[in-house]
Amino acid sequence: MLNKPFNISKLTLFTIDDLLIQFMSGLKNDLLLRTLRGEQTERIPVWMMRQAGRYLPEYRALREKYGFFERVQNPSLATEITIQPVDLVGVDAAILFSDILVVPQAMGLEVQLIESKGPVLPDPIKTQEDLKRIRVPDVHETLQYVFDAIKLTKQELNGRVPLIGFAGAPWTILCYMVQGKGSKTFDEAKAFCYTQPELAHQLLQMITDTTIAYLKAQVKAGVDTVQIFDSWGGLLSKDDFENISLKYIRQIVHALKDETLVIIFAKGAWHSLQSMTETGAQGLGIDWCIEPQTARNFAGPNISLQGNFDPAKLLSPIPVIQKEVKQMLTSFGKGRYIANLGHGILPNVPVDHARAFVDTVKTFNL
Amino acid sequence: MLNKPFNISKLTLFTIDDLLIQFMSGLKNDLLLRTLRGEQTERIPVWMMRQAGRYLPEYRALREKYGFFERVQNPSLATEITIQPVDLVGVDAAILFSDILVVPQAMGLEVQLIESKGPVLPDPIKTQEDLKRIRVPDVHETLQYVFDAIKLTKQELNGRVPLIGFAGAPWTILCYMVQGKGSKTFDEAKAFCYTQPELAHQLLQMITDTTIAYLKAQVKAGVDTVQIFDSWGGLLSKDDFENISLKYIRQIVHALKDETLVIIFAKGAWHSLQSMTETGAQGLGIDWCIEPQTARNFAGPNISLQGNFDPAKLLSPIPVIQKEVKQMLTSFGKGRYIANLGHGILPNVPVDHARAFVDTVKTFNL
Repeated sequence: MLNKPFNISKLTLFTIDDLLIQFMSGLKNDLLLRTLRGEQTERIPVWMMRQAGRYLPEYRALREKYGFFERVQNPSLATEITIQPVDLVGVDAAILFSDILVVPQAMGLEVQLIESKGPVLPDPIKTQEDLKRIRVPDVHETLQYVFDAIKLTKQELNGRVPLIGFAGAPWTILCYMVQGKGSKTFDEAKAFCYTQPELAHQLLQMITDTTIAYLKAQVKAGVDTVQIFDSWGGLLSKDDFENISLKYIRQIVHALKDETLVIIFAKGAWHSLQSMTETGAQGLGIDWCIEPQTARNFAGPNISLQGNFDPAKLLSPIPVIQKEVKQMLTSFGKGRYIANLGHGILPNVPVDHARAFVDTVKTFNL
Repeated sequence: MLNKPFNISKLTLFTIDDLLIQFMSGLKNDLLLRTLRGEQTERIPVWMMRQAGRYLPEYRALREKYGFFERVQNPSLATEITIQPVDLVGVDAAILFSDILVVPQAMGLEVQLIESKGPVLPDPIKTQEDLKRIRVPDVHETLQYVFDAIKLTKQELNGRVPLIGFAGAPWTILCYMVQGKGSKTFDEAKAFCYTQPELAHQLLQMITDTTIAYLKAQVKAGVDTVQIFDSWGGLLSKDDFENISLKYIRQIVHALKDETLVIIFAKGAWHSLQSMTETGAQGLGIDWCIEPQTARNFAGPNISLQGNFDPAKLLSPIPVIQKEVKQMLTSFGKGRYIANLGHGILPNVPVDHARAFVDTVKTFNL
């Protein structure tokens, strides 16, 4: 904010404490972090899931030249892609350009990412014997390129906005490691858990241990907060979600509690908002199928909610987007709220629609 | 029941009224219908969504010989497939073997059903101009083969169990008519509704009018109850669900209220269970992501709940299935409850697992 034209009316909202914290974090815009800590802010922070990616022509230009893992593993490319939406759309946080499947890759499984087809793991885990093919790796040996990308991104961002690190939730990672590809139901992954529960818990623990080391190293490299994506949490019943997913997310949140702020996003798992809050996380992502007030009632007052614009609504005309975004902001009300989509942005969203979303949040007065 | 070995302890639960109703309906087993009407029954009725289909070797044998629409359009094949699970698995109701996409087909759109690929509608609806290509058809001209299949099935069932008719909810049908194929997000269908709302409502009304005529004719042909499948209702926010989906489901329920019992199943739309109950429907399908007691709290006491076993759990070992089914039955408690899956049965479920599901319900004592 301080690198913008001087604005007295905004400035009067700052306290000496705010200025001190901003100075200490080296961040000119720390709206996201203050919101996660439950502090008052002068306006609602906004970012978009998968904001670095396929809807941006600047990203598509790089995709023409480099393969997916080339973009992920080359720190200067990853940095460029991470920063694009900050420059082009004006979001209040950058999220590292990477993929949740670097974790199974680092554990020893082959992962192919074919642009139009989605991920393929040609040798998925099915038996106890298969576990011998994977390990809990030294993340500095296997994922150093991620930490290098974080350091370079922080340097290039130069304190403009915070950088969000991330990882998949262990259950979501297991889905791919067992099913071997995307699926609507992940029935093979579920059957694996139901028929070989001991083996499933062994695998989940290995993923969890890797993820904890991975996220701690991301924090050490410089990310300001992390998000745990449980994209397939919503496929599980409440009991199974507790047993197969949340149990391991809880371990991750506990391991990070003295090191950074944590956002959990388990798409569709509305039934467990309260249990997720009780992990001690600071942020909770929600999708558009739950109303803001209902989510607040389930989650309680002590967590920042994040979401929940229907990504398909960004295909609407701009005046409709503006109207619906304002309605969403009003419904969430003041405080402990981060504007975002309810899931990843679609590749066919026009950039000016994404910008209309961000601008509407940034100019909104409650 | 009366065609089974005579069982005094069961028989004592019958009242003269029960026997009269059974005589009048010509049904030997009317557990499903009595449960929908909120009457007491001697045990919980059970059937399975998509029970006539791909998990049965007897079905797969017919699939080798006949194309999908050949099986659907030939009343004697459709009858054979409809009755297979009654004979093989022992369910308490038959559901007509057909497909929700016969409606867009009857309205004038080409529908291809490719077994491993799912449905394809090569000329989807995108503009006002496209509406000229479709119409609200005379269902007797276009869908007579369905009514013939119903008559033949009723004859072959000979009162053993009730026959369930069905149709897709208008929103779910619109999804396919606009998107032209299956999708995880149906973003094009949603964008169609958000950018051209008047056109969308015109199309939804045409589908609704067709569906009402279609279901009324199914009832006239002999089905004992109907289910409305809103497979993609859960992709919508609560407000959009009301505006794009439930508004039209409500019209259908109202049109049928003096003719038959209606079950609504909008997968994932947990937020609207109360509004769905208020349509006056007698049954409400729920998936496994909502706990029985929560669903009952949302829906209130005046409707029969149906569900909600996770279809992937049928891949578990039989003792696990038995244990989990009993737990589900206990959670739903006595009365106004129909045991079912929370979505369609998976094609890779062993038949003896499906049978274990059904048998566990049939031998369960609350």
